Amino acid sequence: MQTLTVDLGARSYPILIGPGLLRARALLERHVPGRDAVLVSNTIVAPLYADTLRQALAPRRVIEVILPDGEQYKTLDSASRVFDVMVANRLGRDAVVLALGGGVIGDLAGFVAACYQRGVDWVQVPTTLLADVDSSVGGKTAVNHPGGKNLIGAFHQPRAVIADTDLLQSLPERELRAGLAEVIKYGLICDAGFFDWIESNLDALLAREPAALAHAIHRSCEIKASFVARDEREQGERALLNLGHTFGHAIEAATGYVEWLHGEAVGTGMLIAVDLSQRLGGVDAALVERLRTLLQRAGLPVEPPRIGAARALDYMRVDKKVQAGRVRLVLLEALGRAMVTADYPDSVLADTLAAHFG
Amino acid sequence: MQTLTVDLGARSYPILIGPGLLRARALLERHVPGRDAVLVSNTIVAPLYADTLRQALAPRRVIEVILPDGEQYKTLDSASRVFDVMVANRLGRDAVVLALGGGVIGDLAGFVAACYQRGVDWVQVPTTLLADVDSSVGGKTAVNHPGGKNLIGAFHQPRAVIADTDLLQSLPERELRAGLAEVIKYGLICDAGFFDWIESNLDALLAREPAALAHAIHRSCEIKASFVARDEREQGERALLNLGHTFGHAIEAATGYVEWLHGEAVGTGMLIAVDLSQRLGGVDAALVERLRTLLQRAGLPVEPPRIGAARALDYMRVDKKVQAGRVRLVLLEALGRAMVTADYPDSVLADTLAAHFG
Repeated sequence: MQTLTVDLGARSYPILIGPGLLRARALLERHVPGRDAVLVSNTIVAPLYADTLRQALAPRRVIEVILPDGEQYKTLDSASRVFDVMVANRLGRDAVVLALGGGVIGDLAGFVAACYQRGVDWVQVPTTLLADVDSSVGGKTAVNHPGGKNLIGAFHQPRAVIADTDLLQSLPERELRAGLAEVIKYGLICDAGFFDWIESNLDALLAREPAALAHAIHRSCEIKASFVARDEREQGERALLNLGHTFGHAIEAATGYVEWLHGEAVGTGMLIAVDLSQRLGGVDAALVERLRTLLQRAGLPVEPPRIGAARALDYMRVDKKVQAGRVRLVLLEALGRAMVTADYPDSVLADTLAAHFG
Repeated sequence: MQTLTVDLGARSYPILIGPGLLRARALLERHVPGRDAVLVSNTIVAPLYADTLRQALAPRRVIEVILPDGEQYKTLDSASRVFDVMVANRLGRDAVVLALGGGVIGDLAGFVAACYQRGVDWVQVPTTLLADVDSSVGGKTAVNHPGGKNLIGAFHQPRAVIADTDLLQSLPERELRAGLAEVIKYGLICDAGFFDWIESNLDALLAREPAALAHAIHRSCEIKASFVARDEREQGERALLNLGHTFGHAIEAATGYVEWLHGEAVGTGMLIAVDLSQRLGGVDAALVERLRTLLQRAGLPVEPPRIGAARALDYMRVDKKVQAGRVRLVLLEALGRAMVTADYPDSVLADTLAAHFG
């Protein structure tokens, strides 16, 4: 087992990474605080792992709230359902919320924990690679509003993250690949050596070899944690983590958030961002091709829908990262070094969009 | 105008106290951050003051959400209504929420500000004495759940509090008196001299003399702020602010939260707490009578409903301040010095309850 500490002063917490963690009674006993627990999960994941988790926590009282699977259930109504169960069971401030699932469950359960009696502890047990490497670090919790994703939320750090790599064995192939897009992102923005390592170990990752998965998760979380530690409330530097997200947002919005997985859109978005970086002289053309090849080997899409440059720009403009009317973009200065800027020629952005979106 | 700073490091904020503040354009310009504003108020207060506030903030865009008046509307549904308006008007992270009203509006609007896009600025404009001296300090925001009050909430400090004493001129007599109960509380727990001052100036307070009101608000907020600064997340010392609240909670619960105003219940609860303190040897009998006289002069009730000691104790037990089955109580060691304890003979508590609740 590997342990990584997300260093946030009084709000610091460990991420435990490795196989078999969900069965490790003593470990869970040590890292799951509180008395009564409410286990929030969904109908896909709960039948696979809820019993194991409950047994490991016995004899504590574990109350389950099992929601339907899907982003469309990440709502204030679902949060309200969890509140109802917690109140009905008279859970107090010493309760702990366990989030067993992917990003949707993590975001929702974390938000519930943030608000219940003005904040109770929560522990995240991710069941997707994306949740392992993304939502496990940073304490961003939220539910969606019909008018936009994650519009209602809170910053609320978990007390621990239990990243049991065994849980990834049941992950659908496509979701594994989508998670790898975010892993690749960490190499691009912060660590050229990690990017090399991913290129060399992609087959092991796709074969779900525990050691490879554990290293990918560990290094990804370490990079994200270093950004978050310097910028907990996302005022500045943390924005670099959004490489590919503004372009990816255009892809997701244009396709109604159903055709593309978030990681897939981010993967293609990164390729566009790196291409734009190359056109602006930041990186050489060879990196664009290295990235395209890596994404393709990972089974990820590399071409966005042909919606046209103008429509793509419109979608980018309604993203949150707009300041004084100009879209701020995360670009690469070099492999392993990212920057945020609103200072680029519009014509170069237009050419880049035209090259990808048609 | 008097200014008091609530000292919470990066989350510090000023409380401005005095007459005519709502018309002071330059002052509001300086203390209301953000760009677009959403003004949350209720149907009683908005017709009186919303226009004035809007004019003072012109030409900023001020969107209004006017809720029905009453604790029963302090719900997640009402919060959701405000979220809907904010999203429909595309308010961003630079929006500011203005809470124009009493504790209900402040708690609700503050909670909305805490959660909208994971936290936007908010400014509180209290219209009741209770809100001036209680919810204006501490950053506790919340909505009620059918299963209990304030069960869903957040700690989220405002950016400023505008305590315009002119707004208290329209306050119903009974609510003014209820607010005075909390003012008296600050004297009891922390400042014997302030208690003396209240005794001497009660008539001026009841006559709503601006200077008297401003001093009462200033000293009350100063005392609360000192407790909050030492214990922002209510882990310990802040509990002393709850003098009278556990007994008051029993009164409110027994009467279905409709007959007694919160301040009235706290007033009678304080009398019971001070009586218990006297029986335990903390204060002398003369103080109990001084407090009874002061409450009566303020037009506040001094006798709880005759529900019997056993039922009163039951209600006290479901309050949040229970640890390991024993009710923790705030008691006085002396006038101006409070303590929290679960260490008292049950028989003395029973006798005290019997003396008051019958």
